[in-house]
Amino acid sequence: MSAPTATDRRPPLSVAEFAGPARSALSPEVWDWLAGGAEQEHTLAANRAAFDRLAVVPRVLADVSACDTTATLVRSRSALPVAVAPVAYHRLFHPEGELASARAAAAAGVPFTVGTLSSVGFEELAATGATLWFQLYWLRDRGRLLDLVAAAAAAGSECLVVTADVPYMGRRLRDARNAFALPGDVRAALLEGGAAGRAHRAGAEVSAVAAHTAELLSPAVTWADLAWLHERTELPLVVKGLLDPADALRAAELGAEAVVVSNHGGRQLDRAVPSLTALPAVAEALAGRDCQVLLDSGVRGGSDVLTALALGASGVLLGRPLIWGLAAGGEPGCARVLELLAAELRHALGLAGCADLGAAAELRTTPMPCPAWSAP
Amino acid sequence: MSAPTATDRRPPLSVAEFAGPARSALSPEVWDWLAGGAEQEHTLAANRAAFDRLAVVPRVLADVSACDTTATLVRSRSALPVAVAPVAYHRLFHPEGELASARAAAAAGVPFTVGTLSSVGFEELAATGATLWFQLYWLRDRGRLLDLVAAAAAAGSECLVVTADVPYMGRRLRDARNAFALPGDVRAALLEGGAAGRAHRAGAEVSAVAAHTAELLSPAVTWADLAWLHERTELPLVVKGLLDPADALRAAELGAEAVVVSNHGGRQLDRAVPSLTALPAVAEALAGRDCQVLLDSGVRGGSDVLTALALGASGVLLGRPLIWGLAAGGEPGCARVLELLAAELRHALGLAGCADLGAAAELRTTPMPCPAWSAP
Amino acid sequence: MSAPTATDRRPPLSVAEFAGPARSALSPEVWDWLAGGAEQEHTLAANRAAFDRLAVVPRVLADVSACDTTATLVRSRSALPVAVAPVAYHRLFHPEGELASARAAAAAGVPFTVGTLSSVGFEELAATGATLWFQLYWLRDRGRLLDLVAAAAAAGSECLVVTADVPYMGRRLRDARNAFALPGDVRAALLEGGAAGRAHRAGAEVSAVAAHTAELLSPAVTWADLAWLHERTELPLVVKGLLDPADALRAAELGAEAVVVSNHGGRQLDRAVPSLTALPAVAEALAGRDCQVLLDSGVRGGSDVLTALALGASGVLLGRPLIWGLAAGGEPGCARVLELLAAELRHALGLAGCADLGAAAELRTTPMPCPAWSAP
Amino acid sequence: MSAPTATDRRPPLSVAEFAGPARSALSPEVWDWLAGGAEQEHTLAANRAAFDRLAVVPRVLADVSACDTTATLVRSRSALPVAVAPVAYHRLFHPEGELASARAAAAAGVPFTVGTLSSVGFEELAATGATLWFQLYWLRDRGRLLDLVAAAAAAGSECLVVTADVPYMGRRLRDARNAFALPGDVRAALLEGGAAGRAHRAGAEVSAVAAHTAELLSPAVTWADLAWLHERTELPLVVKGLLDPADALRAAELGAEAVVVSNHGGRQLDRAVPSLTALPAVAEALAGRDCQVLLDSGVRGGSDVLTALALGASGVLLGRPLIWGLAAGGEPGCARVLELLAAELRHALGLAGCADLGAAAELRTTPMPCPAWSAP
Ligand SMILES: Cc1cc2nc3c(=O)[nH]c(=O)nc-3n(C[C@H](O)[C@H](O)[C@H](O)COP(=O)(O)O)c2cc1C
Ligand SMILES: Cc1cc2nc3c(=O)[nH]c(=O)nc-3n(C[C@H](O)[C@H](O)[C@H](O)COP(=O)(O)O)c2cc1C
Ligand SMILES: Cc1cc2nc3c(=O)[nH]c(=O)nc-3n(C[C@H](O)[C@H](O)[C@H](O)COP(=O)(O)O)c2cc1C
Ligand SMILES: Cc1cc2nc3c(=O)[nH]c(=O)nc-3n(C[C@H](O)[C@H](O)[C@H](O)COP(=O)(O)O)c2cc1C
Repeated sequence: MSAPTATDRRPPLSVAEFAGPARSALSPEVWDWLAGGAEQEHTLAANRAAFDRLAVVPRVLADVSACDTTATLVRSRSALPVAVAPVAYHRLFHPEGELASARAAAAAGVPFTVGTLSSVGFEELAATGATLWFQLYWLRDRGRLLDLVAAAAAAGSECLVVTADVPYMGRRLRDARNAFALPGDVRAALLEGGAAGRAHRAGAEVSAVAAHTAELLSPAVTWADLAWLHERTELPLVVKGLLDPADALRAAELGAEAVVVSNHGGRQLDRAVPSLTALPAVAEALAGRDCQVLLDSGVRGGSDVLTALALGASGVLLGRPLIWGLAAGGEPGCARVLELLAAELRHALGLAGCADLGAAAELRTTPMPCPAWSAP
Repeated sequence: MSAPTATDRRPPLSVAEFAGPARSALSPEVWDWLAGGAEQEHTLAANRAAFDRLAVVPRVLADVSACDTTATLVRSRSALPVAVAPVAYHRLFHPEGELASARAAAAAGVPFTVGTLSSVGFEELAATGATLWFQLYWLRDRGRLLDLVAAAAAAGSECLVVTADVPYMGRRLRDARNAFALPGDVRAALLEGGAAGRAHRAGAEVSAVAAHTAELLSPAVTWADLAWLHERTELPLVVKGLLDPADALRAAELGAEAVVVSNHGGRQLDRAVPSLTALPAVAEALAGRDCQVLLDSGVRGGSDVLTALALGASGVLLGRPLIWGLAAGGEPGCARVLELLAAELRHALGLAGCADLGAAAELRTTPMPCPAWSAP
Repeated sequence: MSAPTATDRRPPLSVAEFAGPARSALSPEVWDWLAGGAEQEHTLAANRAAFDRLAVVPRVLADVSACDTTATLVRSRSALPVAVAPVAYHRLFHPEGELASARAAAAAGVPFTVGTLSSVGFEELAATGATLWFQLYWLRDRGRLLDLVAAAAAAGSECLVVTADVPYMGRRLRDARNAFALPGDVRAALLEGGAAGRAHRAGAEVSAVAAHTAELLSPAVTWADLAWLHERTELPLVVKGLLDPADALRAAELGAEAVVVSNHGGRQLDRAVPSLTALPAVAEALAGRDCQVLLDSGVRGGSDVLTALALGASGVLLGRPLIWGLAAGGEPGCARVLELLAAELRHALGLAGCADLGAAAELRTTPMPCPAWSAP
Repeated sequence: MSAPTATDRRPPLSVAEFAGPARSALSPEVWDWLAGGAEQEHTLAANRAAFDRLAVVPRVLADVSACDTTATLVRSRSALPVAVAPVAYHRLFHPEGELASARAAAAAGVPFTVGTLSSVGFEELAATGATLWFQLYWLRDRGRLLDLVAAAAAAGSECLVVTADVPYMGRRLRDARNAFALPGDVRAALLEGGAAGRAHRAGAEVSAVAAHTAELLSPAVTWADLAWLHERTELPLVVKGLLDPADALRAAELGAEAVVVSNHGGRQLDRAVPSLTALPAVAEALAGRDCQVLLDSGVRGGSDVLTALALGASGVLLGRPLIWGLAAGGEPGCARVLELLAAELRHALGLAGCADLGAAAELRTTPMPCPAWSAP
């Protein structure tokens, strides 16, 4: 079966098939911003390759008539071992922005991570009833940073996800080529006065969004700073964007309740190891510690979630695929993506003989033979 | 030599070349049902890749003037280390359905597995003279289930092959896309009143066959149920569709006389390990036990059978290729496929210096270097 | 640099580039007979892949102003660690047949292996002045077999190369498809009355050459028969066509002075391990014994020879490439191929810091990273 | 994102993208001379594959607000862990030749290696203010050789880079095919009377440049000769073009202050191991010795430099990419390449959590899963 093309008008039957309709719905520049990665996009491609090169060994003859997919992620209950990943500026993809996606997350019963660069404010998001998590970029201004964390707590965020892999943005050549900038009506709703001024000023061969974050974010943040912040908030701490087991251990020792093994969807260091490849060593390093391992970067369907669980993750963050749903169809689009993901996961669990997520964690994995081969 | 295309009118000279004529003979929907796999079809492709990535180390200077290809599979004598795999509804592919394929199996001297979803009844099949095996799907209704097993025994089945990897059907997106349903004249001949009603009702973006099996089959079946059944029948037990050595061991301990290492031709869990990749660990786990190891999923010719034997299988089930023969030419088509397979296997044994199947079991294997490479 | 195409009229600058002109010079049927392999041609392709996936670690700062490429192969002195492989019926490729190729071998100072199926007789070949080796196929008729060996000895053959991997021909589908048969003027000059009658009778979907050899050759030959022959001739024994170290050991114990690690250029067991992949284990098994290891199947240039030496071979047999030269240009074509091979090898030795073949045997090897990758 | 094509008129945003404009600016023959490698160009392709198949595991939460990229290479201070590789005859690519590239190196603060086959003289190069290194090819005439070294020292060269992998040129088939020769106005400015006479005489199927070097260079040079030279100059010794750890050790024992792990950009032994693949064993062999490990062959951007550092290199030589800049835009083109490389490296260091080069040396690496895979 060949991949559905952008002009394919048939409704997607799998999470993976939502890429086509999303691409059709977006301008090329916004699609590039969403789909693109850093530099030569090696890591972006390898994120998928890592899943494709791994096989799972299913079990049989367990009662799978009622697979239990519920999970506790950090401290939040979730209908699935899945939370929505932080993605900046949802209003780039649909006029309702985070309002649509958060509502879908609420309906699906999965946590929704509000980004520092959310284009919709806390108040509106809290009103969706979604379980909220808050993702923090380390602002240069510590006053604003603490204010932001306090606002997140006040809005009911159940944890604080500090993104650790963005001292500055990766070199995303598509955006520079496109002189990508935010349209005037898309703003950073959580920053003072919705201030994302620099992100709106297009300039030749520069990504305005990258320029904006360079202004905004501190490349000087260290583990000590993180400890400083940890002391100043009650919110459970999650460190997102690490790949080295030593960093994971450091996060756990500092008191983090979860880490997210992530290369930011291939958008930061090109040549960074795929998250899935990095996962087993991180999981092993944290074995026996009170610190969950989550994963993102490359999750495109239910069997990917199963694979991540088999390699030691407690759950995953869903990044681009939810945005595909948002772009293709607003809130119902997001809902359909989450519905398909739930169905795919439940199916995969059953076919792997797993009545719950604990059983999935016991599955064996092995390299998948590569079908690139064909006799000449 | 490039692969023969669908419009290639020259008679196939190898088992593998029968795919083309079969495709030509079938409607696209039926071809998709036959050829397709679950979700992204990774496992489907990897089943072939696993064979292609493996090399066999032949021996020389044995007397191979009369290679003995006969085997005892479970308790049945067979002219080849091959049995026909259970495949639902042969009448989808040719009006004579299982009658044609069973007759060819009888003539070739290999066991024929009658599926729970056979489109021809036991009586007619018994009359073909074929060695019959019976494949059981675990029906929700235990009464019907025992009746079915009793009917199979009465028809002379020499063993009972319980399919363990179908709590429900895998997500076969081609069929959903095609709104695939059974034509009115193709029925489940072994079920009460030929009842496959649901399988005939086409519905948008749904596979009617999948919907039917969801109604029919129990996703709650466990090892304990299997033990329960084992006590209620004299038929030797075979467990089909396992990949994990621990499951193989469990089957052996329960009294199974054979297991079939299989991922159902890539039709159930996408991302499941290829059978051939899983085979050595299963064979090792069962070494010294009175339980044969059979394999299916990806066998396309005599050297594939040789490879499976070298990795520890006692024989293989032939799935799609026999159906190619059926679609392309009814009973003679099936006969030709089995004739080619026998010739290919006898040839391969001789070229590998093996006068019998026992010698094949001693062959060394090693990874095959991948010719995907070409200098730019 | 893309590969030269068949219509490329520029003179080849490397051994590998001779394939194009040869293909242009031959009818499609003869090209297929020359270029083709058994069944799906996996082993044929893998023979090249095995070389391409291997890297050599060169040395530096040795005096390579006069690289010594001379070798003793079996008992023959050779200008290169190369002998011409036995290839049936050279007159299929050029009217002068083995006369042309043997003369070129004589001029280049490398042994020429006369095949059992030579299309030119011993007398004429002896007159070329080439160092002759004789390749024996095990004839069903032992009288003729001993006569043939005696004739070879009388013609001055310096050794007897018994081909061990042809109990019968591999299934070469191209030839069956082409209904390939020998033209009337190409005969088996060494057989009584030039008898290759069956090989001339074309029949639908059958290779007449395969049918002829099936008539002629015994599939019952064993190690005991080989010992029987060894006692009946003074000629040093070489066993050609083995891949398993245990067979190599057996050959050495029987008194063979060399083995040829070979899969017959991918023409016998499809799925057989590439010779180069099999080489190290064979070389290790024979270490310390008085039995040389030669290799063929896939050698296409000087750096391939270097690689084989680094992995433990004392030399290689050159198969198809010499025939490319013969087809493209008769004796001068063969001479050019051998000249290019010598130049390439001398060059490669020098660039690897090897003043002689002994130094090449000390080179390290390591897997070559596969450039199939490219970012999407 | 697809690779920019030769006709792409947009300014390059990465070092890698400079290949396109360079190709557009050059004649096909000169492009082939620059881009080509030896024989089948396996090593050329594998040089890139080696980088692409390797992943780096980044660290997080280090203060990377001011990444320090300065390095001491041999004894020279450099703004980057990068020196310009010796490349013959820069005037082939731009009328200003080495003058342009050396000025750009001076401005960027990186050492510039003057080649034995420089097309601009020492005096002019010294006037650019660049840190000069001198690359020596071992001339047949020892008097000229010592004169040349003395001239290099007089011009202020900070070290002597002896190229060890060119007893003669590799077989570069593109150049032979193109009958490549130097244009009359491009001369070997450092050789007596600018004598590169043979290099100007085009001849069918011969590279005039290869013929010239065969006349000029000695294939007899050994480690003893190198020791002899080492005693006769004060210049710190660097041995360029080795891949085997034993050779590296020998260089260190002889007193070399650095080695360059290099296969000459795939232009010498085809089938030679990629430099990056060879690097770890060399670095390990030299651990604890006073001998730096540098690397070239395949470096195309900042993350390649990071990768080399992670595998044990102290720095890299930049070969073809600087020439791309020269061809595409003279001195400003070179400056832009170096500016992009610096930016990419600084970026990559920061994204890998490395505040300096020492931190990069501590990064873990792991194989990168190959995205060649795609479901059929
Ligand atoms: C368009 C886009 C915007 C993103 N914005 C943020 C962000 O603001 N904060 C953050 O921590 N991660 C951000 N990410 C990274 C995601 O949280 C997540 O790590 C990534 O999307 C995972 O890769 P995948 O989508 O390919 O699975 C963004 C990713 C994308 C694609
Ligand atoms: C069209 C089709 C129908 C099948 N129906 C059944 C079935 O009813 N029962 C069963 O146990 N397996 C069934 N199988 C699985 C086969 O028994 C076997 O495991 C599979 O075909 C092996 O893969 P291969 O055909 O690619 O070699 C079916 C397979 C196909 C292709
Ligand atoms: C057209 C053709 C004819 C051959 N005939 C013989 C033969 O008569 N006897 C034999 O021992 N090997 C024969 N061989 C095998 C060669 O001796 C050798 O093993 C093979 O060509 C090596 O593979 P390569 O040519 O791809 O390097 C033949 C090979 C070819 C291609
Ligand atoms: C056109 C060209 C000319 C070269 N000339 C020389 C030279 O004169 N001396 C030398 O030591 N290396 C020479 N090299 C090799 C480079 O110093 C370096 O090893 C090589 O370019 C590294 O490969 P890369 O450019 O692909 O990264 C040359 C390379 C090229 C491409």
